[in-house]
Order: sequence, then structure tokens, then C-alpha cells
Amino acid sequence: MLIHSASQLLTLAGGPQRGHDLGRLGIIENGAVLIRGEKIIAVGTTDELRARYPKEPLLDASGCVVMPGFVDPHTHVIWAGDRAAEFEMRLEGKHYLEILAAGGGILSTVRATRTAPIESLIAQTRPRLLRMFAHGTTTAEVKTGYGLQTATELRLLKALLLLDEEGPLELVPTFLGAHAIPPEFRDDPNGYTDLLCETMLPILRQWWETHAPGRPLPFVDVFCEKDAFDLEQSRRILTRARDLGFPLKIHADEFENLGGVSLAVELDAASADHLVKTSDADIAALGRSETVAVSLPCTPFGLAECEYTPAQKILDAGGILALATDCNPGTAWNESMQFVLALACRTMKLTPAQAIAAATINAAHAIRRADRIGSIEAGKQADLLILSVSDYRHLGYRFGTNLVRQVIKRGRVYSVEMGYYRTA
Amino acid sequence: MLIHSASQLLTLAGGPQRGHDLGRLGIIENGAVLIRGEKIIAVGTTDELRARYPKEPLLDASGCVVMPGFVDPHTHVIWAGDRAAEFEMRLEGKHYLEILAAGGGILSTVRATRTAPIESLIAQTRPRLLRMFAHGTTTAEVKTGYGLQTATELRLLKALLLLDEEGPLELVPTFLGAHAIPPEFRDDPNGYTDLLCETMLPILRQWWETHAPGRPLPFVDVFCEKDAFDLEQSRRILTRARDLGFPLKIHADEFENLGGVSLAVELDAASADHLVKTSDADIAALGRSETVAVSLPCTPFGLAECEYTPAQKILDAGGILALATDCNPGTAWNESMQFVLALACRTMKLTPAQAIAAATINAAHAIRRADRIGSIEAGKQADLLILSVSDYRHLGYRFGTNLVRQVIKRGRVYSVEMGYYRTA
Repeated sequence: MLIHSASQLLTLAGGPQRGHDLGRLGIIENGAVLIRGEKIIAVGTTDELRARYPKEPLLDASGCVVMPGFVDPHTHVIWAGDRAAEFEMRLEGKHYLEILAAGGGILSTVRATRTAPIESLIAQTRPRLLRMFAHGTTTAEVKTGYGLQTATELRLLKALLLLDEEGPLELVPTFLGAHAIPPEFRDDPNGYTDLLCETMLPILRQWWETHAPGRPLPFVDVFCEKDAFDLEQSRRILTRARDLGFPLKIHADEFENLGGVSLAVELDAASADHLVKTSDADIAALGRSETVAVSLPCTPFGLAECEYTPAQKILDAGGILALATDCNPGTAWNESMQFVLALACRTMKLTPAQAIAAATINAAHAIRRADRIGSIEAGKQADLLILSVSDYRHLGYRFGTNLVRQVIKRGRVYSVEMGYYRTA
Repeated sequence: MLIHSASQLLTLAGGPQRGHDLGRLGIIENGAVLIRGEKIIAVGTTDELRARYPKEPLLDASGCVVMPGFVDPHTHVIWAGDRAAEFEMRLEGKHYLEILAAGGGILSTVRATRTAPIESLIAQTRPRLLRMFAHGTTTAEVKTGYGLQTATELRLLKALLLLDEEGPLELVPTFLGAHAIPPEFRDDPNGYTDLLCETMLPILRQWWETHAPGRPLPFVDVFCEKDAFDLEQSRRILTRARDLGFPLKIHADEFENLGGVSLAVELDAASADHLVKTSDADIAALGRSETVAVSLPCTPFGLAECEYTPAQKILDAGGILALATDCNPGTAWNESMQFVLALACRTMKLTPAQAIAAATINAAHAIRRADRIGSIEAGKQADLLILSVSDYRHLGYRFGTNLVRQVIKRGRVYSVEMGYYRTA
């Protein structure tokens, strides 16, 4: 299949984009992409590719931007129940940590998730995954972490493997047993840390061999934050995970700076995420590392806070910046990467080009898949978007709606009906 | 047709909601609505209405919120071209008034609009109207104002009448010849004010009789702001319009306080809109009036500014608060009222219930149509929404996507495909 006549084809070729190199879109005007099976075979101008492949079936993208599918490298999209009531509490002035201390917050979702059978978890999560896909996300990282006990955490992983198999959205699982201190360990966080290190992680390692043979190991992530896991507990969990062969991620500096970013860099984590209260020393460490800085602007937006990731400082330091939704039931129930871009442009002064690179090739690097997805290059998986606009800058400029017209996942075309209606 | 089994039917019955009375949703659990032709005939519980109307065709809304269609009482949704490039300029630090002074901003859209034939204006505007409709707006006010000369302003009005006729979104036109000082009058704003008062408004009055006989007169609106129309010019234009019989609106206090709100109250304008820099005295005046305070949170959001309408003060003063998109190509290209609600909850601390009332019954009052639309009551036009959620608080709580499942406009059902996809 030859997708042709794109007003702008954004290739994002050339690998992850560090520091102020961010924003190289690799634009081909009147661009074309040749896809066969699940792969991208060739990329060029429409004239070149039509001459070279004259008999190929055609997909007309005239008047449209064609770009890589969004990669969402940080989501908590599998959960049971909702927290609409808590949202009202926050409007009445309660802070997230206050709600957490009152047994609300994450723990109310933990209660709902623990009692949900796998069929219910899948049924509740599927529409969110379809919504992500319809808004242009072709691969998403998804974290467990609303179980906080072995059986539920593994049930969440099993559900993710089944949802990934079902498609079309491709899922990259992360084990986040260290999302919060479970109620049973309220007064003994070190006891839960021991359980994670000595029991849960080794069981996970074995479980994975049995249930996902041949698949890359999931990431192991820790919520390094006041009232969750302190720096020493985070270090123990991540070190143990690394020794078991897991690739690493960390939640750091969402509300307070505990030093999680430097820990992530030291342990060669794939990414350090949130990064609102990050110190200059930690930013400098990021700039010298391969650890991707994943900014989650929907979270301060969702909480109506005014402080966002110091993205410009991270770029100044030479860091690799990515964007994600953080889609979760507490602080940021938003499935759309397009909205993340709109927010990033306004709150962190990224240009649309920078935001697009942060949400595609750099986001792929944050989940260590940049060799396979995140750009339109020969040999990569055919995951791409056809937008209903002719200039990439409409991403960021416009907000609140969906500009995707078609999603192409592993070479298959899905038409998105956004913005249209029909008479019943 | 009997819409039945709604988990929550929000009636919004009882007229516009003043001050802290805002947020009376009139919830009926397991609710039902009987619709015949274009009208709502009866409202009650499912048990009541199914017993009373046993043979009626059914539309199942179980698991769904049913509510009035959104009314968007302030949009500039008819224009030609776009300003994606200017968006990048703003990210580089340029202020809106700076861009305006440099001949950009509104005037670049004016240039594009003046040269666009009516067919092109209609073709460019239609997808935006459909996008609004698919996100649940069933009636929208739309302003002219990118013509700033008689012929173009009337061409915009003509296009609006044709688009309204085409449907399904119902349009309420506003004449905003006083949107900016046109380039021909750069050094003579009083000259343009004279032209408006002595020529354009009287011509408009006659034109309307011929082209829209029997329709209510359009609103006349003025952009009362530094570098646009000062208070005295605004007073002249609005007074002349009132004397010709037009209902009034005003843009006031978006960037600076010129006293436009008190002028609006004095002249009994239907609404005063923007209201970011509004003084306490002006807020007190609003509180004693029938003039609706229309807040446009997408505009500061779009401009990445931190100051929003002082909504709590307006409620404290007893004002009638409404919400609108301000959809326009410069500062806020967003068609979705749902996103306005999400923003209003976070930036102005409205609860979801308050935001919903501000976007339905109070918004209808802002365009003086609250007798006909804005609530689900017997005798009103059958304009309503079936949401894909069972609790109204998901509006506000969730953001970035579309929660509408079906839009019912004048009794006709339109299925919205948001969040879904199909293989091409």
C-alpha cells in the first residue's frame, strides 16, 4: 500500500532527539510511504515512490499530515471503578496527599481493583484503550499498581497481555507493585518493601517466563515520593529488579524532590517520570544520561496546579524529553496524546514540532522501543497517523478535539469517525 | 419516542440560575423523557412514563446520563484560513496585542475572510460546526467580525443563515462589525465608529428584514478593549444598535478594564463576555442585573495566561454565570463545550454541576433563548444529549476526549462515533 500526496510527511527519522535538537520532524512535502504487511518499506516524495512502485494500491493523503503514531510511555490505564466523587472533593480544596491520607486517592481504586475479576478489569479498560487508539496512540506503556498484592498485580498483568493480544493498541506492560503502601502495611513500609524485593519480584520473574515466554521483560517502576516509597526503599526495589534483569522506570518529583532522578540515572533506568520539583543537579544528571525525562503535564493540569516540568531547563541540560498522558482515575483521566501536546506547548513552551518529537520518537525511546517504532523509516513497524489537517502545527494550536482521520497500526488501516455523526 | 432508564436525567428545570443557586441539576434517577416531533412532551421517572405511554417507541439510555444539549453562547466560528504560524510566534514570547500591532492577529484573519467567496466560507466553517455538534453543542451563537466592512460582514451573516438552515447545529447570529479597527481606519477609529453607527447598522437592519424575515434580530456586539473600541465608542455603537431594536452583547475586560461591563448593564445587554479584569464595582453591577456574565476560559488557556474570570466573586455578587468556547482562530480553536467545563472546574473552581448549569440553561439565557432551550422541560425544544457515562461528574473530571454518545436535535437522533474506529 502506498500512502501518497501527504501535504507534510513527518518522518521523525534519525533516532531520539537530545536537548535543543528536539523538534527535527524530517518533513517531506508531498510525501509518500510504502507499506507492505506490518512494515514500512520505503519513504520519499510522492513522485519518487509512485515512479518506483507504479502498481501499488493507493491510499490518498492529500491535504493531510502523515506522521508516526503517538507513543504514550506512561499510563495507569488499567483500573476498576472511578473517582468522580473525589474530583468534587478536590474542587472543595482538598489536596491529593490529604485525600490519600484519608484513605481515598489511590487506595480507593486499589479496593475496587482487588475485588474486580479479570473479565471486569478487561471490560472496564477496553473502552479507554480504544479511546487512546482513536486519538492516535498506537503503542502505550501501561502500569499495574492498583493491586499492591501479588495475586492482583499478576491479574492486572494477565489482563494487559490479553488486551495487547486483542489489539489494535499495542501495550508495553510495567510492574508497579511499588505504586503506594498497601493498607495492610500502612505502619510498615519497609515490610512491604521486603515483600516486593524478596517475594513479589522473584515471583514476577518466574510468572513472566510462563505467561509471556519470549516477550521482553516488563519494566519495574517505583513511586518515589513522600508518603509512598522513600529514596532508600526505591533504591532497594529498583536494584533488586535490575539484578533480576528487569528494565527500570521511576516516578520522581511529582510533589517533592527526594532524589529519585539521580537514582534513576545511576541505575540506568529507561525513564524518570513526572519531574515537577526536580533540582538543577538532578536535571544536570539527566542531561548526561540515556534516561528519558518523561513529562506528564496532564497531572498538574488535572490537579489545577500551576507548576509543570521545567522542560526548557531539561533541554538546556541536553536531556531527552518525552511526553505522556499519565492516564489514571485520580489526577488525569485523559486518553488523548493530542491534548498532552496542546498542554505542553502552553505550559512548557514547547513548539508543536518539539512536542511531536517528544510524543513519538523520544516517547518510543522512553519504553526502549525506538528501534522499532516512533518514526517513519524503512524497516520500522507501520504505525502511523493520517490527520485531518494539512499543517502539523494544528497539533498544539487546536485543543479539546481529535484531529486524527485514520490510524494505521501494523499496516492495517482504521478510520476514525471523530467529529462526525450519523442519523440513527 | 421515549428515552428511558437514564441513570441520571438532568432536567435543569426552573429557569436561569443566579449566584450560588448555580448547579441545580434537577436530577431524576432512572429518568425518562417523552419526545414527539421537535418537542419535549413529558419528563419523569421511567416507571411513570412507561406506564403513561406504554406504546411509545423506545430509546434505551440505561447506564447513561441524559441532559440538555450544550448551548455555546459565544463563538467566532466562521472565518477563513488559520493562524497556526502565529501560534508558534506566541510560543516564542510574543503577546497577543503585540501580534495585533504588527498587523497579525485578527487582521490576518480579516484579510483571508474578505477575499473568501461565500461558498468557501461555508466549506471552511461546516466541519467546525459538525465538530461542535458531535461534542454535544445543539445551539451556538456565532459572531461575524472578520469582515469589518459592510459587504463582507453581510456575506458572513448570509453564510450563517445558510449554515443554520442546513443544520443540524442551530445558529444564533451576532453582528460584530465592531470586532477590531479595520486597516483602512487604523488612524481614525472614530471614523469607523461613525461608519458603523450611521451606515452599517441601519443597512444591517434593512438587510435582515429582506434576508431573514420573521427571525429575531441578531445581537450586536462590540469588542470594548484597548486598541479596539474604547468605552465611548462602544457606548455610541451599542446605543445606536439598541435604538434600532437590536439586542446587545459586549466583549469586556479580556486584557484591560475599560468599564464595558457597567455599560452592558446600563444598556440591558443580554450578556457581557470574557470578564477577566473585571472590577469589583462592575461585578456588583452584574449581580444586580439580568446581563449574563459569559466566561470564556479557553481564551486564557489558549494564550497560556494564568488569570481567569473571577467566577466565585460573580457568584458571590449574585450574577448569572454562563460558559462558552469563544472558538476562534487566534486564541482558542476549540469546538468542545466539554473541554470548557473541564477547564472551568479547574481554573474557576466550579463544581461539575455548576459548570453544567452554566453551559446549558444559563448559556441559553445569555442568548435570550431560555424560554425554548437549555433544559429538559415539557414544551421545550427536544435538544438533548445521551452521554456514555452514568454519572454527570464525569463531565469536568475527565478531559481531552468526547463523552457524548448521541445528540438529539429537534427530536432527531444523531449517533456520535467518538472514541471508536472501524477497519477501512
